[in-house]
Amino acid sequence: MAIIVKKFGGTSVGSTGLIQNIAAQIASGRQPGDSLVLVVSAMAKTTDDLVALAYGISEHPSRRELDMLLTAGERISMSLLSLALQKEGLDSISFTGSQSGIITDNKHGNARILNVSAFRINEELERGKIVIVAGFQGVSQAKEITTLGRGGSDTSAVALACYLRAERCEIFTDVDGVYTADPRIVKQARLLPAIDYGQMLALAYNGSKVMHPRAVEFAWKYRIPVEVKSSFTFAPGTLICPETKHKGTTMEERNVTAIAHKENLLRYALKQDQALYAALKTWNNEIFRYSAENGVLELVIEDKYEKEINHFLEQNRTVALSVDKGLGYVTLVGLGINLDPGFLAETLEICQPFELLRVSHSDKTIELMLPSAQVQSCVQALHKALIEDRK
Amino acid sequence: MAIIVKKFGGTSVGSTGLIQNIAAQIASGRQPGDSLVLVVSAMAKTTDDLVALAYGISEHPSRRELDMLLTAGERISMSLLSLALQKEGLDSISFTGSQSGIITDNKHGNARILNVSAFRINEELERGKIVIVAGFQGVSQAKEITTLGRGGSDTSAVALACYLRAERCEIFTDVDGVYTADPRIVKQARLLPAIDYGQMLALAYNGSKVMHPRAVEFAWKYRIPVEVKSSFTFAPGTLICPETKHKGTTMEERNVTAIAHKENLLRYALKQDQALYAALKTWNNEIFRYSAENGVLELVIEDKYEKEINHFLEQNRTVALSVDKGLGYVTLVGLGINLDPGFLAETLEICQPFELLRVSHSDKTIELMLPSAQVQSCVQALHKALIEDRK
Repeated sequence: MAIIVKKFGGTSVGSTGLIQNIAAQIASGRQPGDSLVLVVSAMAKTTDDLVALAYGISEHPSRRELDMLLTAGERISMSLLSLALQKEGLDSISFTGSQSGIITDNKHGNARILNVSAFRINEELERGKIVIVAGFQGVSQAKEITTLGRGGSDTSAVALACYLRAERCEIFTDVDGVYTADPRIVKQARLLPAIDYGQMLALAYNGSKVMHPRAVEFAWKYRIPVEVKSSFTFAPGTLICPETKHKGTTMEERNVTAIAHKENLLRYALKQDQALYAALKTWNNEIFRYSAENGVLELVIEDKYEKEINHFLEQNRTVALSVDKGLGYVTLVGLGINLDPGFLAETLEICQPFELLRVSHSDKTIELMLPSAQVQSCVQALHKALIEDRK
Repeated sequence: MAIIVKKFGGTSVGSTGLIQNIAAQIASGRQPGDSLVLVVSAMAKTTDDLVALAYGISEHPSRRELDMLLTAGERISMSLLSLALQKEGLDSISFTGSQSGIITDNKHGNARILNVSAFRINEELERGKIVIVAGFQGVSQAKEITTLGRGGSDTSAVALACYLRAERCEIFTDVDGVYTADPRIVKQARLLPAIDYGQMLALAYNGSKVMHPRAVEFAWKYRIPVEVKSSFTFAPGTLICPETKHKGTTMEERNVTAIAHKENLLRYALKQDQALYAALKTWNNEIFRYSAENGVLELVIEDKYEKEINHFLEQNRTVALSVDKGLGYVTLVGLGINLDPGFLAETLEICQPFELLRVSHSDKTIELMLPSAQVQSCVQALHKALIEDRK
């Protein structure tokens, strides 16, 4: 019995029409003998709407109640999908994160999975049912409802695939897979049929939105093959796996696999001291990048978190030395590109029209910080010179 | 017929006694039916001695003649090993890089492998001979002798393993394998039985000397399983491969796999302009790290290259804005450690006794720049707190 976990993101279940489309695709495409577990996010914008409702009542809502509120989102999408499947004549049952046995720590709003104990899912699969699971949510050991934070539904899906020893985990989303650059920005971007965990992790960390880095890490750790594909077409997408085939024409050729980017970032400069360390230990927001020099810690963060961060800093009596707005990052990912001085020179030349504020690198990336407004043209210029023109 | 490529580094073939020991181990340990290819470096210090000889004659010897000179080093070690094997009653034959068909570009002193065409090795293996190959060297398409630069012998071995479709590539060296930290500095360091390519690459880039990053990249690209082990004991070492098993006690636990470090670094600040870009394209030395900000490119380099770099900059009419000496780096490697603010705070607290000059990170590292003199105590403190005390 092959178990397949399929995860549908918020835009994929964004309307009843889309939910019915998924049910129809599942009904027609199901292989005999396959056991299906469907992990769903809340319908697009539901979570944001719920958050807005909470902030309409309290400026600083408690994390516990916020979790209670937000988990209503997946409850809606999962029951609707179950109804749609039943209408297609399929036998299905939906479970909350708690019913699914996704056990987390007690960090409300950003909980980490400790363990999965999904025996109820196994029981229902054995009865031949399609099981629908609320992504993004879990339950603490003290039986409190928790949410997993950003990337939560992807992570739920991968964790369940791991527990169930699934053959693979399919992440359905609103794009066809992983491209050499964001196809909305670069028309010539190519779909990558496969990419290894290591490079996918670098792309995910640096702004590729198809899969959350946390879920990529999880999949890598437990070696779960993941396929990212479109929930609209169900066409083959990008396989994320250890097996990648190198396609250079010479053995030590250095190629850019793909370009990731991130816009609308803020940079906070904070004085490094005990107060800051204590604050960091209770920090709940996603950080995009950090660096420190001369006793000053710089945090680069998406600007949508600005209000929360300001409040957090205030509460912790930490004053930002400075805040820079309107920053962006463009990151080249590829094995061996990073320590080649000639390649660096070429990259810097291509970037001469742009105002590079900082250049850094890792063992398979070159990372460029520049004004957010220049990010898209920079991605286009680099994609043309380093990917298209080198085909 | 399983082909196994074994590479012996400079310290492993550092004396005739050691070479005889290798021959004896090969004679006693060879499995019937196994075909062996042995890749050797020059005997320890030989290369440095030859370089010194050249610089005794000319302050700036031509790269071509230097390559001609240096390749004598492996010629000595490979013929001696062949003689030792023959004395053990084994049939063996040695080949230069050129005879082995290691085709490179024409960048003397730092050539890149374009292709391998090792039909002569196959022929001799079929005749039942043990083939000994000079590592580190190749031949350009214009039939000029080239050397592969740092990490060259490891890269030769992996490239041959790839061409020959070897079952595995064994890198014999003067340590037992990959440890959680350099065992000369940290007594409690543990040998890692296995590590995946991605994390090994991060360790190699950040100072772990057991294998060169370039060879790790190569092995990763072509999925060659590599074992790093001791040439003194021949005991099982560390397997570098896609298959790693996660050993956390909870699913999303974040652990430090190992700590790498680098001492005795120099930092050059260079003005970014066309002259610098042109210079970088002919740059021949290994760069440890770079970063740029406000139009200034900073290069961090091992101080042993100081003379060469100064000469190179002079020739290219590039003046360093500043040079900092006595720098070091300590790098934590582990999946998921990098964007956890609490983990960052903990790391910074452990490092309070040290003068952190810069903190940065990648998708699976935290990187600390500090005075070279503090590197060893910093590695010890971090290993104790983040690896030993968490067992």
